[in-house]
Amino acid sequence: MEGLGFLGAGIGAGLAVIGAGLGIGNVAASAAEGVARQPEATADIRTTMIIAAALIEGVALFGEVICVLLALK
Amino acid sequence: MEGLGFLGAGIGAGLAVIGAGLGIGNVAASAAEGVARQPEATADIRTTMIIAAALIEGVALFGEVICVLLALK
Amino acid sequence: MEGLGFLGAGIGAGLAVIGAGLGIGNVAASAAEGVARQPEATADIRTTMIIAAALIEGVALFGEVICVLLALK
Repeated sequence: MEGLGFLGAGIGAGLAVIGAGLGIGNVAASAAEGVARQPEATADIRTTMIIAAALIEGVALFGEVICVLLALK
Repeated sequence: MEGLGFLGAGIGAGLAVIGAGLGIGNVAASAAEGVARQPEATADIRTTMIIAAALIEGVALFGEVICVLLALK
Repeated sequence: MEGLGFLGAGIGAGLAVIGAGLGIGNVAASAAEGVARQPEATADIRTTMIIAAALIEGVALFGEVICVLLALK
């Protein structure tokens, strides 16, 4: 049953993208609404968004690296 | 059971598209509403949207590359 | 169990369409509402929508290419 690791790698990579997409998408949607409401606060809103998105991105890339390890086994 | 890796590649690729679609779709929906509310802030809103969409796109393409690795095994 | 790759190709292609449909559909729905609210901002809203839809389309087509690779194996 060596193939189960490959199955896990594929499903895990997909699920990681779902998590990152939902998370960053939610942050950025509110950021876009915030910029539209207060255009003069654009820099502050964008920095806040990027910090949060980078944190989500970090977890997602760590998860994807685990899936790469499984896929290259 | 070599085929399990191929099954994982297909399911993973599909899940990655779901994540990217939901995420970028959510961002861009709010961006479109924001542009409609404040057309003079279009450039700021669009830049914010593209930054977030690029982050989601990065995770999604990384996930798809893992699925390519599995599919070509 | 070679057939598992074909199963993955079919499921993956379907999931990719779900993701692209939800994502682009969400963007375009908000864009249509935005155009209805501010018809003079139509060009800005439409450009924003097309950028986001093209990003989602890119990930979706990449996923479908992976499924083609699996289906032709």
